[in-house]
Amino acid sequence: MNQKTISDYSEFQLIDKIIKKIPDFIQTDIIVNKGDDAAIFKPQANSLVVTSIDSFVENVHWNPSKQSYYHAGWKIINAAVSDIAAMGAHATYLTIACNLKKKLYYKDFVQLINGIRDACKELKINLIGGNLTSSNVNAITVSALGEIQKNNRNIKIMQRNNASIGDKILLSGPIGGAAAGRKLLKKEKINKTNNKMIKIFNQPKARTDIGEIIAQEGVKCAIDVSDGLLQDLLHICHASKVNAEIQLQEIPLYTEAIKTFGLTQAQKMALHGGEDYELLFTANNRTIDRLKRKYIPLHVIGSIKEINKKKQRSNISLIEKDKITLITKNHGWEHF
Amino acid sequence: MNQKTISDYSEFQLIDKIIKKIPDFIQTDIIVNKGDDAAIFKPQANSLVVTSIDSFVENVHWNPSKQSYYHAGWKIINAAVSDIAAMGAHATYLTIACNLKKKLYYKDFVQLINGIRDACKELKINLIGGNLTSSNVNAITVSALGEIQKNNRNIKIMQRNNASIGDKILLSGPIGGAAAGRKLLKKEKINKTNNKMIKIFNQPKARTDIGEIIAQEGVKCAIDVSDGLLQDLLHICHASKVNAEIQLQEIPLYTEAIKTFGLTQAQKMALHGGEDYELLFTANNRTIDRLKRKYIPLHVIGSIKEINKKKQRSNISLIEKDKITLITKNHGWEHF
Repeated sequence: MNQKTISDYSEFQLIDKIIKKIPDFIQTDIIVNKGDDAAIFKPQANSLVVTSIDSFVENVHWNPSKQSYYHAGWKIINAAVSDIAAMGAHATYLTIACNLKKKLYYKDFVQLINGIRDACKELKINLIGGNLTSSNVNAITVSALGEIQKNNRNIKIMQRNNASIGDKILLSGPIGGAAAGRKLLKKEKINKTNNKMIKIFNQPKARTDIGEIIAQEGVKCAIDVSDGLLQDLLHICHASKVNAEIQLQEIPLYTEAIKTFGLTQAQKMALHGGEDYELLFTANNRTIDRLKRKYIPLHVIGSIKEINKKKQRSNISLIEKDKITLITKNHGWEHF
Repeated sequence: MNQKTISDYSEFQLIDKIIKKIPDFIQTDIIVNKGDDAAIFKPQANSLVVTSIDSFVENVHWNPSKQSYYHAGWKIINAAVSDIAAMGAHATYLTIACNLKKKLYYKDFVQLINGIRDACKELKINLIGGNLTSSNVNAITVSALGEIQKNNRNIKIMQRNNASIGDKILLSGPIGGAAAGRKLLKKEKINKTNNKMIKIFNQPKARTDIGEIIAQEGVKCAIDVSDGLLQDLLHICHASKVNAEIQLQEIPLYTEAIKTFGLTQAQKMALHGGEDYELLFTANNRTIDRLKRKYIPLHVIGSIKEINKKKQRSNISLIEKDKITLITKNHGWEHF
């Protein structure tokens, strides 16, 4: 069987392959595109530029024995763009650095590129530059660039440190699906019911459909649920110097996760799982009314409270019927 | 001896360390700085945004047994910014993705951050965002962002595909020093004479001092010599669909490299070595006169020739007295 590796090709042949496979998917003002030392674009008049960087490392962020390279490519693009959506901007451009093993099969390289291409197409974003280098570990790093229109001095962006006391805490959709999918893949339990969760894990979608809209409608504080609900909510609490109170039974879950793992496990996955890429945000009642009129999907799960000034350290009160659990430490994914 | 590793700290403690160690070094319009999902800045009025991405991987781009983490940090920042200078822009912002081993010593992590900080300070650039993740291989990826002022529809940028027949080929300074330094480090030959080359290898400086100026003065085609003179010149030739002719004895070399390795070796290092980060560019005589009046350092090493239309593939004629060597393939650093 002919199993070529990428070392059967030159660096420049591989770069050519990427350039040919990934065209531009939207009309934008690109002055210099892929293939030069750097890319150049013209930002829209009166706009701000938003940028984030994110990495996916083999055996940390994806398991090549359980997930295809296609899914690795798809996921890193969505993860990077999700951070732009969480600021209230729309992502327009990407650059990508691929650190790849010399013995990577060429067919897996092509699958990786296909995943990147399909995600760019779905998200309507243009890949404008990149870098390719050899490494002993496959790792993909994406820099996402977005734009925010600045109208009449009024910059509508969402930040972690903008939660206000009295704000409701909301989610844009059910969470815990990715963690359920990850668990099912580990156990190799794939059937019709489970398929949905595996798809959520393998092919999550950044909420680019609502990030910019909710910011325009007045939401001032958001984050994406990439590290797990409790950890990401703690990020908001710490940055905003507030506490949070959430009702366990109000957290939207996937029916499939409850069916497969039971309610308690499904709730745990929602609290700690991460990689869901739904938006977690805070808003006052007037803003929530405006969002409802625009048919924005939302689930109120709790509210923002004053911090205990003596204690100074933010916490989350997790309420389950009459029981209150106080969360003060990060409970999500920790790298070190 | 207390040798803490980064796994003795949480991800957020390490991020805090980076944020505290690296302040902003220039006054710019940053709307959201390090610490949120993404960073936001306001581009200067009427400007274009330039962006590139570059990775440094342990044991590929730096050898931790010969080079300090300080130098790894310094080099990746300069390498990334060099690509922006080669387009004729000035770099303003960086985001950085650090994929680090859990067993990395904390003191090496601090050295890495110090190298990044000192390079940012020297280059007058602001780090505005980043990502930290664990990996089995240390690797740093930098996304550099720059700006180019657009005056009266006249965008003065430099591109690989802009070399014109009759243009002279120029270098902004001596090359081959980094390759000499790399060789000396390998052989552990460090003394007073060699020190300069080792410093060039360990602490190269991106030519941000001249990139923007030469573009403004009319240079339309440039690249940085990161892959080696012949390879980078071939990039220009292929992109511009031209041939090149260079005089071996006109290539500026380091006296120290000639003293240590002899002329022939020093020339080879200049042709194939890479990592010099000098600018290689083409210009007509009128532009060269203007550059000279501005005291821009430059060394004419050859000229751009018409391509043989029958052959179609670009080549370089390397002239050494009466001998002409025809270069058609890449001779620099190849990753795969």
